[in-house]
Amino acid sequence: MKGREGAPPIYLDYNASAPADRRVVEAMMPWMSDRFGNPASAGHAAGREARHAVDEARAEVARLVGMNEPDVIFTSGATEANNLALHGMRRGAGRPIHMLAGATEHKSVLEACRSIAEEGGGSGGSDDGNGSSFGIVPVRGDGTLDLGALESMLTSRGGGCRVDVVSVMAANSETGVLHPVAEAAEMAHAHGAVLHCDAAQAAGRVPFDAGALGADMVTLSAHKMYGPKGCGALAATRDARRLLAPILHGGGQEGGLRSGTLNVPGIVGLGEACRIAAGEGRADAPRQAALRDRFEEEIARHIPDAAVNGAGAGRLPNTSNIRVPGAMAEAVLANAGRVQIATGSACTSAAVEPSHVLLAMGLGREAAGECVRVSFGRPSAEADAGTAARDIAAAASYIRGLEAGGGGGMEAAPR
Amino acid sequence: MKGREGAPPIYLDYNASAPADRRVVEAMMPWMSDRFGNPASAGHAAGREARHAVDEARAEVARLVGMNEPDVIFTSGATEANNLALHGMRRGAGRPIHMLAGATEHKSVLEACRSIAEEGGGSGGSDDGNGSSFGIVPVRGDGTLDLGALESMLTSRGGGCRVDVVSVMAANSETGVLHPVAEAAEMAHAHGAVLHCDAAQAAGRVPFDAGALGADMVTLSAHKMYGPKGCGALAATRDARRLLAPILHGGGQEGGLRSGTLNVPGIVGLGEACRIAAGEGRADAPRQAALRDRFEEEIARHIPDAAVNGAGAGRLPNTSNIRVPGAMAEAVLANAGRVQIATGSACTSAAVEPSHVLLAMGLGREAAGECVRVSFGRPSAEADAGTAARDIAAAASYIRGLEAGGGGGMEAAPR
Repeated sequence: MKGREGAPPIYLDYNASAPADRRVVEAMMPWMSDRFGNPASAGHAAGREARHAVDEARAEVARLVGMNEPDVIFTSGATEANNLALHGMRRGAGRPIHMLAGATEHKSVLEACRSIAEEGGGSGGSDDGNGSSFGIVPVRGDGTLDLGALESMLTSRGGGCRVDVVSVMAANSETGVLHPVAEAAEMAHAHGAVLHCDAAQAAGRVPFDAGALGADMVTLSAHKMYGPKGCGALAATRDARRLLAPILHGGGQEGGLRSGTLNVPGIVGLGEACRIAAGEGRADAPRQAALRDRFEEEIARHIPDAAVNGAGAGRLPNTSNIRVPGAMAEAVLANAGRVQIATGSACTSAAVEPSHVLLAMGLGREAAGECVRVSFGRPSAEADAGTAARDIAAAASYIRGLEAGGGGGMEAAPR
Repeated sequence: MKGREGAPPIYLDYNASAPADRRVVEAMMPWMSDRFGNPASAGHAAGREARHAVDEARAEVARLVGMNEPDVIFTSGATEANNLALHGMRRGAGRPIHMLAGATEHKSVLEACRSIAEEGGGSGGSDDGNGSSFGIVPVRGDGTLDLGALESMLTSRGGGCRVDVVSVMAANSETGVLHPVAEAAEMAHAHGAVLHCDAAQAAGRVPFDAGALGADMVTLSAHKMYGPKGCGALAATRDARRLLAPILHGGGQEGGLRSGTLNVPGIVGLGEACRIAAGEGRADAPRQAALRDRFEEEIARHIPDAAVNGAGAGRLPNTSNIRVPGAMAEAVLANAGRVQIATGSACTSAAVEPSHVLLAMGLGREAAGECVRVSFGRPSAEADAGTAARDIAAAASYIRGLEAGGGGGMEAAPR
């Protein structure tokens, strides 16, 4: 069942990374070798045309997420954008800050918060209680943010020690679960906090309007929406930008909030990806939802006790996270060779530990280890849903048989 | 004399940015849309082949600068690498640190040091004297680091309050002046400090062997050596890496020192750029040096009182920084339309202020405003040196005439 034997592999890991759209690559190409000026070189036309291209991309990014052009700060990707939003708040405040983040946020949000809380305050170390604080807002069993818990965590600080920033992602990368961003933003604002929303997985897949949602800062990733790797953005309202200080210091690009030569081809590619996503990208969502639904139906038919994580919540159209009790996910992957999928999230799979997302949803460590994520994309074909379901079901059944019989699950499954 | 009328522009601003070599772009292309896996996706072949490509590039980068593969931490560029070296030391130490940096270092080194010194210590604010400290090591009139001053600054701290890191660039972007990195490293090591070397302008242009020089951390930029924008690296020895903590937190990529999905096409492009630079890149240096020399000879012939900044020092083969007394650089640029050059460094030219590099070399504010930088590159043609010298000389003479006569310098110069 290995991909190299017989039929070509079927890539169903679009939440980990998506191919750059051909038009994106075409848009980037002129800026690689022919029009290669540095946008900071204001003294000649080569620099000025590069700056102009960056500003056109800035407009596309702002348009996709319902923000204004000057809000867009280009970064090297979503991880840097999340770090800029949070470390930038801490640095801009010049004092310890108080942060709340959802339990299923991306590691780059959770680890950024943790590192801020550990670094101590401006007038005291982290051990004496005067440093920054970080609270994790639980999620409900369906994976959505527990708004009641958020409200009480916002309230309980009280006494002049208000929360500075609440970070709630638009959609979870592992389960596709959509969070109540608008409600969280309203609560955050009522308590004087800023709302940061990691929209890396949502933007371009589901409608996302930061203005309507009330998000003050929005994180974007190019390669999750058929743009290039190595480029992303933090879009922050004027008021939010005033609260930020940079984490990368230097030439003062991006209004002083992100130094470093602008990655012109990458930025142009991100702009083109946003333009495409706003139109046909979103238009493809119902088709992907149908593929996802068919996949889940077939899995249910083959493996009646399989469970869909987050099934009760609104989800991204393309994402399915399923658990097959008794079948370790790593072994399923190794035996479903044609189908390229994920266990946990790609960004943390270097370290094999149970998904923090699934644990937060109430699954035990063992159960979390029995989950695989299938994520469809624009290039996914109609047949992929059925093939994936059959191959995954066959692999899972084989593994369950082996595990029930005490085998190791390392041999190839019979077709 | 505007570029759009008549002959095409002559780009002589390769220190600001260079075009990606066609072979670099060719090497990157397969990783954009066809082989687009996330290197963190260890569970399938698409992820594993991406990781393999990254590791091959890592080997090329290490080879170019005389370090080992595991030393290479890929970043979004030199600015991030410089920030990682310095902020990373501060975070890794978990206490205030003491830094020395040359007066002509890139803004990303100087501003990173400044921001660390301003953020205060782990057990006290910056105002109570217990925070991190930052000393600027002066340069001599020829632009080279003043080693005597470095030695006394390393010694004077004494009393258990030793310097943690010394940052000395290999070559200055504005003047091309080469610094005595080996001597600085020896001094730093004798006092228990780590040496960080920003080699963004030197690597691939002049021989650079971090091992021989004794540099513990080396900053690289892809787009300065005909690689793509948006990619760079910090190469740090095993001992130096132990002193670092990340500035971007998240999925734990790059040994935990730099989170974020790896920019596979950019990294592959950087690797290819290093491979080319190690061979024909360096081989082209004598040709560029001859162009540079011819340019300076012609300038001297046309404008006998023109001065070459850093003429007394060893310099990059491609860089010339000249001062024409009485001719404001901005006006020279505006009137030397065919020739695309720089005043100050590109990275700071958004803010029109005198170059900190030239001020540090002893020029006054007005004199610093009369300097332009010409930087040749691999694509530069034989004729470019003479044309540039004649056009710049004509523009400068015209401006001098206007300024002597009280004119504004805004009209086009006659040919």
